[in-house]
This record gives sequence, C-alpha cells and structure tokens, in this order.
Amino acid sequence: ILARIRCPDLLTRIATPDQAASLIHDGMTIGLSGFTRAGDAKAVPLALAERAKRHPMKLTVITGASLGHNTDKLLYEAGLLARRMPFQVDDTLRAAINRGEVMFIDQHLSETVEALRSRQVGPVDMAVIEAVAITEDGGIVPSTSVGNSASFAILAPKVIIELNLTYSAAMEGMHDIYIPAKRPSRTPVPVVTCDSRVGTPYIPIDPAKIAAIVITREADSPARVATPDPATTAISAHLVDFLQNEVKKGRLPPSLNPIQAGIGVIANAVLSELNRSDFQNLRMYSEVLQDSTFELIDSGKLLYASGCSVTLSAPWAERVFNNIEAYRDRIILRPQEISNHPEVIRRLGIIAINTALEFDLYGNVNSTHVGGTHMMNGIGGSGDFARNAYLSIFVAKSQAKSGAISAVVPMASHVDHTEHDVDILITDNGLADLRGLAPRERARQVIAHCAHADYRDLLSDYFERACRERGGQTPHLLSEAFSWHERYTRTGQMKP
Amino acid sequence: ILARIRCPDLLTRIATPDQAASLIHDGMTIGLSGFTRAGDAKAVPLALAERAKRHPMKLTVITGASLGHNTDKLLYEAGLLARRMPFQVDDTLRAAINRGEVMFIDQHLSETVEALRSRQVGPVDMAVIEAVAITEDGGIVPSTSVGNSASFAILAPKVIIELNLTYSAAMEGMHDIYIPAKRPSRTPVPVVTCDSRVGTPYIPIDPAKIAAIVITREADSPARVATPDPATTAISAHLVDFLQNEVKKGRLPPSLNPIQAGIGVIANAVLSELNRSDFQNLRMYSEVLQDSTFELIDSGKLLYASGCSVTLSAPWAERVFNNIEAYRDRIILRPQEISNHPEVIRRLGIIAINTALEFDLYGNVNSTHVGGTHMMNGIGGSGDFARNAYLSIFVAKSQAKSGAISAVVPMASHVDHTEHDVDILITDNGLADLRGLAPRERARQVIAHCAHADYRDLLSDYFERACRERGGQTPHLLSEAFSWHERYTRTGQMKP
Ligand SMILES: CC(C)(COP(=O)(O)OP(=O)(O)OC[C@H]1O[C@@H](n2cnc3c(N)ncnc32)[C@H](O)[C@@H]1OP(=O)(O)O)[C@@H](O)C(=O)NCCC(=O)NCCS
Ligand SMILES: CC(C)(COP(=O)(O)OP(=O)(O)OC[C@H]1O[C@@H](n2cnc3c(N)ncnc32)[C@H](O)[C@@H]1OP(=O)(O)O)[C@@H](O)C(=O)NCCC(=O)NCCS
Repeated sequence: ILARIRCPDLLTRIATPDQAASLIHDGMTIGLSGFTRAGDAKAVPLALAERAKRHPMKLTVITGASLGHNTDKLLYEAGLLARRMPFQVDDTLRAAINRGEVMFIDQHLSETVEALRSRQVGPVDMAVIEAVAITEDGGIVPSTSVGNSASFAILAPKVIIELNLTYSAAMEGMHDIYIPAKRPSRTPVPVVTCDSRVGTPYIPIDPAKIAAIVITREADSPARVATPDPATTAISAHLVDFLQNEVKKGRLPPSLNPIQAGIGVIANAVLSELNRSDFQNLRMYSEVLQDSTFELIDSGKLLYASGCSVTLSAPWAERVFNNIEAYRDRIILRPQEISNHPEVIRRLGIIAINTALEFDLYGNVNSTHVGGTHMMNGIGGSGDFARNAYLSIFVAKSQAKSGAISAVVPMASHVDHTEHDVDILITDNGLADLRGLAPRERARQVIAHCAHADYRDLLSDYFERACRERGGQTPHLLSEAFSWHERYTRTGQMKP
Repeated sequence: ILARIRCPDLLTRIATPDQAASLIHDGMTIGLSGFTRAGDAKAVPLALAERAKRHPMKLTVITGASLGHNTDKLLYEAGLLARRMPFQVDDTLRAAINRGEVMFIDQHLSETVEALRSRQVGPVDMAVIEAVAITEDGGIVPSTSVGNSASFAILAPKVIIELNLTYSAAMEGMHDIYIPAKRPSRTPVPVVTCDSRVGTPYIPIDPAKIAAIVITREADSPARVATPDPATTAISAHLVDFLQNEVKKGRLPPSLNPIQAGIGVIANAVLSELNRSDFQNLRMYSEVLQDSTFELIDSGKLLYASGCSVTLSAPWAERVFNNIEAYRDRIILRPQEISNHPEVIRRLGIIAINTALEFDLYGNVNSTHVGGTHMMNGIGGSGDFARNAYLSIFVAKSQAKSGAISAVVPMASHVDHTEHDVDILITDNGLADLRGLAPRERARQVIAHCAHADYRDLLSDYFERACRERGGQTPHLLSEAFSWHERYTRTGQMKP
C-alpha cells in the first residue's frame, strides 16, 4: 500500500466504504468514475445504497458513462437516484427512467464536463474515483477508464478515492490527462495524432481535497461477450468492401484514417473483419477499447489505440491486465472530453462507426428511443463522433425482433443524428452511400440497399406516394409517417 | 485597372462575361463566390444563363451560401441547375426544389469544402470568384465575402475572376485566408480570439490557373431591411435579460462570450437590443455581419467582429464601404470553413443565436422544412454553431401566419438540431432554459414559457396524455404527434 499511496500524509485518510459513504448527504451531486463498465467506483456506491436504506436520500449522480456491478440498479432500488446523467445501460434503471421516476439527462459524452465547468449544471459536491495509485503530490492515477474522473476530481471540493489493488500499478503512464484552459484564454487541444501525449499521467489535485481512501480488490464487471452472427458478419463485409473501395478511389490512405467504433456486437464484428482484411498500420481514436482492439494489436495490424476506457471480457482482461507493460505503449486513455472532442475528431478525420436503432429513408438516425418514446441507453459518444467525423457511418441489422421490426422506417421516430450528419448507412442487406445526394436520391439508395426484402416494397410504396401526394424536398405523408411504429405497438408487427 | 491587376501577365486574360461563360460546359461542377448575397459572382452567371438558352446545359452549382441578383432564379429558369448546394434563399428555386426538379443538397456550411477537398463531392471544374484586386503573384483579394471562394479557387483547375471596381481596393487586408493542411499532417486551426489573424490577406493560387478576368461594376444586392416588431423586440428583451442574469450568476463574463447571430429580422432585433443594453467590450464570431453589427461598432460596444461576409442595406453599404479604412481594423472576413469551424466555435465558447421555424416540447428544432417536407432555405451555419457552441439558443415568434401556426408543436416535423444540442428556446412569450433538464422537465418549461397562450392548453393536454397513455423518457402519442401539422394542411389552421 505504501507503494500505491506515495504521499505519506494521505495514509491517515484510509477509511472503510461505510465511513466514506457517510460523507455523502441528501441532495448532493456526486461524480462517479466509470465508463462502459470500466474503472467504476465500486465499494462506495454499494455502501451508499446500503446506507440509503436506513437514511433515505436523493442524489444527482453523474458518471463518465455506464457503470458495472449493478450499481445503477442498486442505487435506484435504494431510492437514491433523483437525477442521472449522461449515459446508462442498466435494465432496472432504464425501466425507472421510462416510468418517469428518475430524471435522466441524455448528453453528448464530451459535453457534460463543459456544462459542469461553466456551472451550467452542478456543482459536483463529491467525486468518487477509482485509482491504481496516488502520486507523491496527491495526483490520482486512474484505473481502467478516465471518463469524467479528472474533471470531477478537479471541480469537486472533496474527493473519495477507491484504490483498487487488483489492477497493476504498472498502469501508471497509460493515461494522458489534459484539461482545456478556462476561456477566454483557451488554446488549441494539442492532440495531432492518435498517440499524441499532451497532459500528465495522473489527475493533478490538491491532496487536501482527498477526504477518504478506500482500499478495494474487485475487478471490473466483464464485458458481455458478443459473438458475430450472419447479420453482423454481412454488415462488416459491406463496410470493409466500402473502405477498400475508398482507398482505391484515393479518398482514404491505405492505412485508413483513425477509426472510432461504438460498443457492442456489430462494432466487435467490424473490427474482427478488419483483422481478416489486408489493411495495415491502422490507428484508432475511439472511446472504448474492446477485446477486438487488442486482437488487432496482437495481430500487428493496429499501431495505436487512443480511448477513454478498456472494457474487456474475462479472458481478455486477464491477458491484457496481466501484461499491461506489453500494451502500455500501444494504448492511451484520455478524459472523455478529449477522446470525444469535436476539435480533435475533425482534425484527425475520424471514420466513425456507430450503431443505430433505426434510420429513415432520408438518413435521419435514431440511436436512443425505442418507438420514439422509450429510452434504450443514451446517445453516448455517437453524436460527438458522427457530427464531426470525416466519415459518419451508422450500422444496424435490417430487422429486429425476428423480423417484426424494420430498422429502415419511413420516418425515424426520434432523431439523434440528422440527415446532415450521416454519410453511410449499412445493414446486413447492403450499404447506402448518401454523400452528396439530395433526400429523394438518398431514399432510393436506402430502399435499394439497406431495407430488408420483406420491407422494401412497403418503403417504395410510401416513398412514391409521398412524392406524388405531397412532394417537397423531403417527401412525407405525415399521417402515415409513424404508422409502422403504431402498428407494431398494436399488433406486435410492423408489417400490415 | 493596373492598380487592381498587379500581376501584369494577367492583363491579357481580360474577357467579356460571354467569353468567360463560354469556358463553362455541360456537365461541369462550378463553384461560385457569394455568401448571403454578398460578394457573389454577378456577370458570368448571368451570361451563362443567357448562353444556356441557346446551348442547353446542366450544371452542379456550389456556392458559399445564398446569392443576390436573382442569380439562382435565372440559372434555374435557363434550365441549367441540375444540382445545387449548400444553401439558397430564392423563391423560384425553392419552388423548383420542392417539386423535385433541382437536387438540393442542404449541408452544414463548414462541411462543403471538406467534402470537396477529400473528393467525396465534386470535383469543381471551374471557380468563378468576385475580387477587388489581384496581387503581384496572382493572389485573389476577395470582395465582400469569402465563403467557399478560397477552396473553390485552390481546388478548381481553372478560375474566372470577376474584378469588381465598385468595391474599394482598400478592402485588401480585411480578409484572412487560412486553409487547413491535408490530413494526416493537419495541425490546430490557430484562431484563439475573434481577431486572430492566421492566414494571408488574399487567396494564394497559381496565376496560370486564371482563365479569364471579367471587369464588373455592379454592387451587391442590398440586404432586405428587417424592422423590429413587437414580437422580435420581446424576444430580444428576454434574451438580454437572460444574458444579464448569466453574468450575475458568474457563468458569463461581463463582456459575454463571442456572439454568433443568424441572419434576419430577429437577429437584427437582438443585436439592436444589445446596443441599448449595458454590455460593453462585446465580440462577434459569426457568419454574416449585418447593419446591426456596424451599429454596435459605431456605438463602441462591439470591439471586434469576425465573419464570413458583410451583408448590408443600401444606406449602411454606402456608409461602411465608403469608409472601409475606418472599419477594416475592427472586422475580419474568413472562409466559411473557419468562421463556422467546430474547433474554433468550441474553443471560443460561442453564444449562438439562430432562428427556428418550429420546435417541440422536448427541444428538437426544425430550421428548414415547412410542414416536415418543404424546404425553406437550408440549415446554413446554424448546425455548425449550435452543435459546438457554449450556449445554443434558438429563437422564433410563438406564432406564424397570424396565429394559424404555432411555432411550438408536439413533435418537430423535421429535426435539424436535436434535443442534445439545444440549450435555450425563446419566443415573444418567454424563455425556456433547458440546460440540465430531462425531457419531461423541458416540456413543462417550454409549455409555460414559450408557447403562445392560444396553444398552451392544447400542448399541456397532449403532454399529459402522452405521459399517461404512453410514458417513456420522451412521452409522445405517435398517432397525434403531427396532427397539428395535418390539421393546418387540411383547414389552414393548427387549432382544432
Ligand atoms: C443502438 C444500440 C441500442 C444497439 O445496441 P446493440 O446491442 O448493438 O444492438 P442489438 O441489435 O443487440 O439491439 C439491442 C436491443 O434493441 C432491440 N432493437 C434493435 N432495433 C430496434 C428497433 N428499431 N426498435 C425496437 N427495438 C430494437 C433489439 O431487438 C435488442 O433487443 P433485445 O436485447 O431485447 O434482443 C446501441 O448501440 C446504443 O445504445 N447506441 C447509442 C450509443 C452509442 O452509439 N454509443 C457508441 C459510442 S459509445
Ligand atoms: C428559420 C428561418 C426560415 C426564419 O426566417 P425569418 O425570416 O427570420 O423568420 P420569419 O418569421 O420572417 O419567417 C419566414 C417565413 O416562414 C414562415 N414561417 C415561420 N414559421 C413557420 C412555421 N412553423 N411553419 C410554416 N411557416 C412558418 C413565416 O410565416 C414567414 O413566411 P412569409 O415570408 O410567407 O411571411 C430562417 O432563419 C432560416 O432559414 N434559418 C435556417 C438557416 C440559419 O439558421 N442560418 C443562420 C446561420 S446563417
């Protein structure tokens, strides 16, 4: 422990999870470390949920992104969650949000910190941050994610550290903490390549703010392993074909532009397909580094990966975290403000690959709201990337729920990414290249290439009638635009 | 003329508009200078329209933004417009677009050039650029706008220059031409304040590419003068109140952050209201510099204005352009890629004020599509600013068409700016501050503060029933979501 807490004055702050949790009071806003189940505060939220059963309280809970360990479920069930931002993936919490019980603020992941910093949201009263070490000066070395931890710790008056002994202290050096200066003297974010190191390897804070240090030993919840299926394999093949063609046309270099890939089964399948392709010297500038990122590193195809968290399945976690020295020079973890920064994304010319719930004839994408009303997870970083990327690609299986739902609909029932921000749409059925096309031209591409055969004629019929009966730049029949969604609610089937 | 064409070799390239127009052939993509009616190519497009009557041809026409002089109308009527991007405001062209006769690609104004540069769109075969001078090395000094002119001239193999003698050669020095480097060696855009000068005062091109120089004398079409009315005055008052309060709360400095204001009557009213306020030392980082910008400069309240064009009414044009030396140090004109650059907008922390056609209970904004289908003008720069701004503000009159239309609707019939990108909504009725609120909370604010009294109960009724009957993060009744729009089409009235 002495090797992990290198600022000896801080040894007296070691506390139990209960003692630390007792520093958090009703009405507070707390900032928890954690991004896609990695590096989340584990012991203190649990103790807090227990405490709240005896001492009811309501909190605003802000995280990087999703937490592991059922933490969101436990906090909700303890009656503790009044407000939650900016992202979540928990089934129980999702249901509560959709009942209107928890106010959920679904934000672009790069923007939460800006809102806090300028006090448009917040202030954060307490930060709870997982770390692998504390430096001589009280600097916090994060564990498997950075998320919003750096700004939580810097902005909050008090910080609780969960020092996780399971993760090697050799992680030190893997993180790059850069915080933009206050306006009006803010200067460019100096990241110019995926591997630019521009900050410190720890979160610099005044050690006097460290209110408690809790020692933990629990690992991150393992990533859900997503095995490719025929649909995701087909999607990946269309994408790799497309990228090869872009290289042939001279629009992308042979090593491509830096890649961002969302989380989940499709992103994993895409990266696996890249692993089987001829591409070399790839680079990633992404949020989450998953199993497939490390497969690509191991196979020598991926030179460098910049992200915000490392979220792995159990076998890959063992492999990577027990050999962190071998990977430490190939990866870099940044605050989500920087991994998702519009400035850097535009500069590097990212190829952004994210998953849609549904999209429409004209290229509007719904990532968040099932049936236009019910929150799935949140927009996450998809908007940060899509709206500033060089190529903004959305993928989806052409059908969901065994064909009862078409991912291609007349009109998206909620829009997270507008027609102006979407370049390429891919389903298992094919790829629609929307670049430089007017809406009516896009519709023909989307119907021909993306729609499942079972829905193609229905979409054509809608589109042709909309052109004829209503016209306009973006023809629609408003009285029918959501009829497929309505029919699904009524009959469990979008098809008539 | 010798003083204007300082590269003597080029004197032989002087040509008539007809001669220049004859260099443009069927099937070409041409890039025309011009941004919000300022600095548009005037003589060659006119000659081209004449020529097309005798020699039918189809072109793709790309501009900065809107053109003056009925150019879009004339090009359309000559049967010449196959494709048009990225923005327009012409009545005749608008109707043709909405009949599906001209393919209109409605793009974020900062992105057209990126698409051209990477050959995702284009290539541009010919650039037609208005200038006030040509330097010793063939550099082009633009006139009253920069728009996309610099990249058109750099990317096209041939350039026609319209040298406009009406505008003073003393404009030289007012422009700042900075072109981001090719990836992967692109570095930060070094603009760190509104008045940063980071490029050259002319567009640097190889003089051998200059195919023709046409001498012109016609001025820009004057801006339509928009006089404030009670509604726009009320909107401005709400906005200024809000800004004063933000200063009081310490969220904005007393001189505010740099301001962007869209074009039109409301933007003008807002800036006039600022002129009557106590704010001092203001700065603008905007697209269009209008009459009101210069009023603010004259009154000493505005220190500096960075933009992409100067679009003035006839009296202000006389005042400003005849005294350009007096204003030259207070204004800077940049390529629209830079005036609207996500990187710079985020860095400077812009306060973005744009006009909506309609918005919904949850903060989704429609800027472009009347009734969800018919193009008004285009998204212009509103998305570039809104999605990366510090404060993203949308304004609208609470009603249109004498009350037959409510600007606040259950669901936006087209989404250009998503709920994730909208902070503040203002109508004559009041201001809704959506920051940090969940959708159900936003709805209550929007209904209470923005809706016109005639529509308030109808909106409340929709919202309450949607919560009760359907629920979700964002309650909607899909079968009714567009019923107001449908009723307007049927009866000419949104009210039942
Ligand atoms: C869109 C998103 C929910 C897709 O998730 P996924 O796990 O990759 O995709 P799946 O195909 O497994 O779909 C997940 C569920 O949604 C359902 N679904 C998919 N499309 C649907 C639609 N149009 N309507 C209703 N349900 C749908 C699936 O049936 C599945 O349900 P199940 O779990 O009950 O079987 C997910 O990618 C997401 O949350 N995206 C937004 C955030 C983001 O993009 N982040 C990336 C940067 S971090
Ligand atoms: C939205 C926009 C059309 C509003 O224009 P404006 O001239 O400021 O506003 P007005 O209130 O005068 O409205 C213009 C017309 O739209 C009509 N209108 C307004 N709201 C409407 C609605 N919800 N449905 C139908 N028509 C509507 C008005 O009645 C008016 O019609 P008229 O000319 O026949 O009287 C304009 O700001 C725009 O094109 N914005 C998008 C681009 C942009 O934001 N650029 C800013 C950065 S450059």
